[in-house]
Amino acid sequence: MLPTSKRQWTLAKRPHGVPSTDEVTIEEKTIGELPPGHLLVENHYFSLDPAIRGWMSDAPSYLPPIPLGEPVRSTVCGKVLASTSDGFAKGDLVYGMGAWETHGVVPAEFFTKVPEDNTFPLHYYVNMLGAVGLTPYFGVIEAGKAQAGQTMLMSAAAGAVGSIGGQIARLMGLRVVGMAGSDEKCRWVTDELGFDDCINYKTCGDMVDAIAKACPEGVDLFFDNVGGEILDAALMNLNSDAIIVFCGAISSYNATEPVPGPYNWWQVLARSVTIQGYLIKDYFDRFPEGQAQMSEWLNEGKIQFKEHMVDGFDNTLDAFSLLFSGGNEGKLMVKLEAAD
Amino acid sequence: MLPTSKRQWTLAKRPHGVPSTDEVTIEEKTIGELPPGHLLVENHYFSLDPAIRGWMSDAPSYLPPIPLGEPVRSTVCGKVLASTSDGFAKGDLVYGMGAWETHGVVPAEFFTKVPEDNTFPLHYYVNMLGAVGLTPYFGVIEAGKAQAGQTMLMSAAAGAVGSIGGQIARLMGLRVVGMAGSDEKCRWVTDELGFDDCINYKTCGDMVDAIAKACPEGVDLFFDNVGGEILDAALMNLNSDAIIVFCGAISSYNATEPVPGPYNWWQVLARSVTIQGYLIKDYFDRFPEGQAQMSEWLNEGKIQFKEHMVDGFDNTLDAFSLLFSGGNEGKLMVKLEAAD
Repeated sequence: MLPTSKRQWTLAKRPHGVPSTDEVTIEEKTIGELPPGHLLVENHYFSLDPAIRGWMSDAPSYLPPIPLGEPVRSTVCGKVLASTSDGFAKGDLVYGMGAWETHGVVPAEFFTKVPEDNTFPLHYYVNMLGAVGLTPYFGVIEAGKAQAGQTMLMSAAAGAVGSIGGQIARLMGLRVVGMAGSDEKCRWVTDELGFDDCINYKTCGDMVDAIAKACPEGVDLFFDNVGGEILDAALMNLNSDAIIVFCGAISSYNATEPVPGPYNWWQVLARSVTIQGYLIKDYFDRFPEGQAQMSEWLNEGKIQFKEHMVDGFDNTLDAFSLLFSGGNEGKLMVKLEAAD
Repeated sequence: MLPTSKRQWTLAKRPHGVPSTDEVTIEEKTIGELPPGHLLVENHYFSLDPAIRGWMSDAPSYLPPIPLGEPVRSTVCGKVLASTSDGFAKGDLVYGMGAWETHGVVPAEFFTKVPEDNTFPLHYYVNMLGAVGLTPYFGVIEAGKAQAGQTMLMSAAAGAVGSIGGQIARLMGLRVVGMAGSDEKCRWVTDELGFDDCINYKTCGDMVDAIAKACPEGVDLFFDNVGGEILDAALMNLNSDAIIVFCGAISSYNATEPVPGPYNWWQVLARSVTIQGYLIKDYFDRFPEGQAQMSEWLNEGKIQFKEHMVDGFDNTLDAFSLLFSGGNEGKLMVKLEAAD
């Protein structure tokens, strides 16, 4: 028997600041007939990522805004309950672009099958073996053109992307300095992940000086997930011909007024900097290559990571707010009841 | 008989806004003995460029700030009166990095000899055949990776760099749209220089809409000399994978408070934009190649340009202020008394 209804987190209003339950609300919806080329997916895990906040607003971005009345877009993984697509069958484990809902009726082309020989837990495909792990992978290697001997500065170093990206750069022979918002996070980043140094940007005093001290040969590659003051301080420490991988700007995602770009904008010219706006979707066709390398590193124990798993569909929105308070420890995901 | 004294425009104080004669003053100085490896150059022409305003301030930039008490740095051309360098002899015509002074005692490596077979007027070497012409040349071709069929948007299109860069892009088969600050400038850019369109940003109303209308297929390459609101409006019209050549930011050079970067900063990520901080000094070793191509175009009449020549050393500072009021028409230079 296929389910005839689902529960979903509906985007009711465009949020002002961190989204509240006025703006994103739980609703029960009927599951309609499956159109051709679609899957009915029973979701097991949601990935909670800062980018989702951007899709909730109506500012132009790389994906269209989530329509009001629709469930919140998110990467998910789960099990196929029914398929009208040749490439998928009932029982397949899949991951892809779905939404915060217990079940999704989704176009088959938005989803990928977990490989038959997979030995990792399913939720790795919304984490290390999905966009979360492959964003820093292609970001460091391709967008950032990382080279052994360089110094990389990583903002949000204890975050999902930052913590993995720093380790990848270390594996490639770079000196890696992180920035994070607590001494505990900094200790994790240096002691457990092997970063060469980590700056607590909340307590370091003058950030420009702190970066200069931690990067005595200057910064060749700045992998930025944060923007704002951290970006401005990094700009003052870049070497000539440095690259900035612009991967995110979490400092401004909940802003309720226009946020200016970096005040030290001139340094981009003065230091012949290249800024690369970076989206993982430009690398979707190279996921198998990235997954193979990441699987190898994971099997060899060369990459450490933390998961912050929140149990229960109903806790999704509360969990999401942790991303903006810095309250999560490691990659934030929701485990749905169906995963048990 | 070699001269024993010179007149110079001395940087007395760091200017606040557009420089005044309190801040930049004429002084008479003794010419000392020529150290080894130096030239005594009788200056014939100064090039007045927006970048000079940056060197007057003490903000970190690609060249060190002009020291207080020293003459204002500038590209110049003139005649060698004496040389203690093997590569130069009395009577050589030269161009290079000098200063606003009637005579300069300069390191020989800062100067280049005008080719023996040169058929152009000397001042072309601080204009079309110097950094002014070669900045847009390498900016469009190398930093901007211009390709036939693309749409290029050029800010300060009637300026020295913009007017030449647009014509180069047209010669390469791009659709070129300019932005300028008067109908007269726009007419010059379209009717005389052959740009496909030009937007008067002062009267066009909503700049985002105006660019969208003039660039119906979006902007692939934005060559920016201005920054500020024009940059913000351009960002909303960029195609995915567009390139911004960040060549200048004249809108902020005389700012007396910190100027924020673009408010539409997020679009850099959302559209996978590459921003290339661009300095002509990274291409100095390729000047002969650029000069050869520019000479060919000039001889064939394929590139039009305007010169705004101000007569007389004493008028240098007044002339310089025209750059910031938009009062110059074409490439601004000063012709010194020695050139007659």
